[in-house]
Amino acid sequence: MRIEIICTGDEVLSGATVNTNFSFISRRLFDAGLPVHAETTVGDDRDSLLEAFRVAGERADAVIVNGGLGPTVDDLSQEVAAQAGGVGLELNEAWLERMTNHFRLRSRAMPPNNRKQAVLPVGAEVLDNPVGTACGFALTIGRARFFFTPGVPREMRRMIDEQVIPRVLARSGQPGAVLLKRFHSFGLGESRVDALLAGVESLAPEGTVKLGFRAHYPQLETKLALRGPDRATLQARLAPVEAEVRRRLGNFILAEDEETLESILLEHLRAERHTLSIVENYTCGRIAARIAALEDSASVLRRSIVAPDEQGLRDALGLAASGPSNPDSLACNLAQAAARNAGTDLALIVLVEPDTGADRTDFGGQIAIAIATPAGVIERASRLVGGREWLRLGAAEMGLDCLRRHLLGLPVDERIDFEKLASVASP
Amino acid sequence: MRIEIICTGDEVLSGATVNTNFSFISRRLFDAGLPVHAETTVGDDRDSLLEAFRVAGERADAVIVNGGLGPTVDDLSQEVAAQAGGVGLELNEAWLERMTNHFRLRSRAMPPNNRKQAVLPVGAEVLDNPVGTACGFALTIGRARFFFTPGVPREMRRMIDEQVIPRVLARSGQPGAVLLKRFHSFGLGESRVDALLAGVESLAPEGTVKLGFRAHYPQLETKLALRGPDRATLQARLAPVEAEVRRRLGNFILAEDEETLESILLEHLRAERHTLSIVENYTCGRIAARIAALEDSASVLRRSIVAPDEQGLRDALGLAASGPSNPDSLACNLAQAAARNAGTDLALIVLVEPDTGADRTDFGGQIAIAIATPAGVIERASRLVGGREWLRLGAAEMGLDCLRRHLLGLPVDERIDFEKLASVASP
Repeated sequence: MRIEIICTGDEVLSGATVNTNFSFISRRLFDAGLPVHAETTVGDDRDSLLEAFRVAGERADAVIVNGGLGPTVDDLSQEVAAQAGGVGLELNEAWLERMTNHFRLRSRAMPPNNRKQAVLPVGAEVLDNPVGTACGFALTIGRARFFFTPGVPREMRRMIDEQVIPRVLARSGQPGAVLLKRFHSFGLGESRVDALLAGVESLAPEGTVKLGFRAHYPQLETKLALRGPDRATLQARLAPVEAEVRRRLGNFILAEDEETLESILLEHLRAERHTLSIVENYTCGRIAARIAALEDSASVLRRSIVAPDEQGLRDALGLAASGPSNPDSLACNLAQAAARNAGTDLALIVLVEPDTGADRTDFGGQIAIAIATPAGVIERASRLVGGREWLRLGAAEMGLDCLRRHLLGLPVDERIDFEKLASVASP
Repeated sequence: MRIEIICTGDEVLSGATVNTNFSFISRRLFDAGLPVHAETTVGDDRDSLLEAFRVAGERADAVIVNGGLGPTVDDLSQEVAAQAGGVGLELNEAWLERMTNHFRLRSRAMPPNNRKQAVLPVGAEVLDNPVGTACGFALTIGRARFFFTPGVPREMRRMIDEQVIPRVLARSGQPGAVLLKRFHSFGLGESRVDALLAGVESLAPEGTVKLGFRAHYPQLETKLALRGPDRATLQARLAPVEAEVRRRLGNFILAEDEETLESILLEHLRAERHTLSIVENYTCGRIAARIAALEDSASVLRRSIVAPDEQGLRDALGLAASGPSNPDSLACNLAQAAARNAGTDLALIVLVEPDTGADRTDFGGQIAIAIATPAGVIERASRLVGGREWLRLGAAEMGLDCLRRHLLGLPVDERIDFEKLASVASP
């Protein structure tokens, strides 16, 4: 089955907007076992759209079109779809009523040009949009079935998952349900995880589980995709594979599915009624920002301090300089002071001592992590390389992961793949 | 002149990588007066590439191909280009030598498969890549001139600007030089700037300056694009327009061209030997992070503190609770305490009191900004709406902009377009 995507809109074509809609649609189709064959972007002009629809209609089986369903004059998808399909346009009374109600519920009159959104090619099948006024639709053009979706990301995402993928799956002659299980890990490279999980798919009957990865440093996403007759069957098939992946990746799994490292952390911190302060230097406050940006973090994350160097850190935490010190003992002292000063039971300190000189691929830094707890200070030393930004990303992730490991009673110093041997600090 | 772009690579087609290369290329061409007509993405397979090259070769005048010039087996651009162009392949000895030297300078032996990067279609014109081993090239396929560029963003960007655009301009029969002047502003909406700048292009002879905008909240980019015989002529033509834009947008211009708000701030802070501390709540440390991430900021930004609420902020700065207070006087007191505690001559405080309830488009918040200086505290109150993230972005930008305005001796309380009337705080 040949699947194509057509993205429309001057904003996307001119490069003003980065086309994240396309990435989403392609990823979702891929995860459902429906890889995309080609993508075309054209602007909001009649000739380009018509040509793109005709070309795709001749060579593809299914085409997903994104954009051009809005109320303004440059939204041309319905009109050009009708022309390409050789049909007329007609008002869809049901959708017009939906829109009128949508505006009434918000105590607003529907602007007259919104009416255009309910005008569809004759014979089009409506694709429901429960979160907006743009009406999706399916229509046959040439030998392909076209699925027209809105450009607003929130509306597009829901329509792809709920309306488009089931229909494309059905057309591909494949069973109607898909299931995607995702594991987020930190510390294991893609090839290592691939080796660790060798043969895991065979735990499901007849190769129904497809294993895949998506690396976005510092995290790796491991995906298990299944297709089958219905969701319950798929969950039963997935269960042994899922359990085995969890067993093999073990402590390295940070979160699953829609969870994030920081959401998991906040959940545990709240459940155990912890309060936390965070101290950083080179990571610029990014560690604290990831927790602080979550709703309801205020009662947990009580204070975050950033200072650029040892003197600045000591001053900020009221620690006198105490002769020569190494980064590990500094981190330990800062952790205790941070918890004491802020009156929190936990304090996370992540100190980076970057290499000197220009940014380069082997630019790295020593990382000293300390977590102050009522039972004492937990420490972790490491070295990461890969350039300044890589170092910042890795150090922030490692700091948060150490805290997660502490909260879950896991070893905080389990060696990770990205790690270089930490140079031994002089005593 | 019809210009098309072809992006290649399974990573991009599958949605694993968001296609920012395309946005860059299209924007750059657009700014040079060379709008792109269509874009196609295909994977790393011979048939798809060949089809895409042939189709574009029949209908376009210039085609920019991105990706597929690497050393691995799935990098197919040279091979398929030769096939589509009906020519053979040959080793480019000069490029092979360049590569060998490249590796020798880094004290590494060239891996054997890199040799492939010097094998080009017969008759191809080399497009120089001064920052990598992938050799760009131009070749005629069908009726179009094709320009092959590497997928590595840093290498692609330089090749587009230095090698591709001048050649496409020459083919378009237009003069050979382009000039792009950019102004970054905060506080004026696109339509307001458009109105403010009405007629400004007429200050250059014969409509040679094209005015354009790129809105990316909270900033707006105003672009002046020129084409002409050479750079010196263009700069002379631009001068009166540039001066007039600067005059009309005045205090709202944060930065120009490659500068950023934070780089301008750091430059002024360093030049005047200031030291700074920053205190935030709702913006989660993002304000400080923008300055802290710049190299050489350590001597200026001495301390950054984030706490979620009034009590947390008072505790962190050692301020006793002092009966009922309003956010403005709290900001003022915190600013003085922050400068005193950290021993800095300046302190920037940005406090946000968000609305309650769920996130929504009319979710907003009161913003209280205070800057402690040796001469006293400068204050600014505002209200922004647009949802949680909009509020965070706007408050961070406003805080940094107030500091810029203070450093440059400009009014800090000039009303901005995004601002709602701040509710009057009770005394």
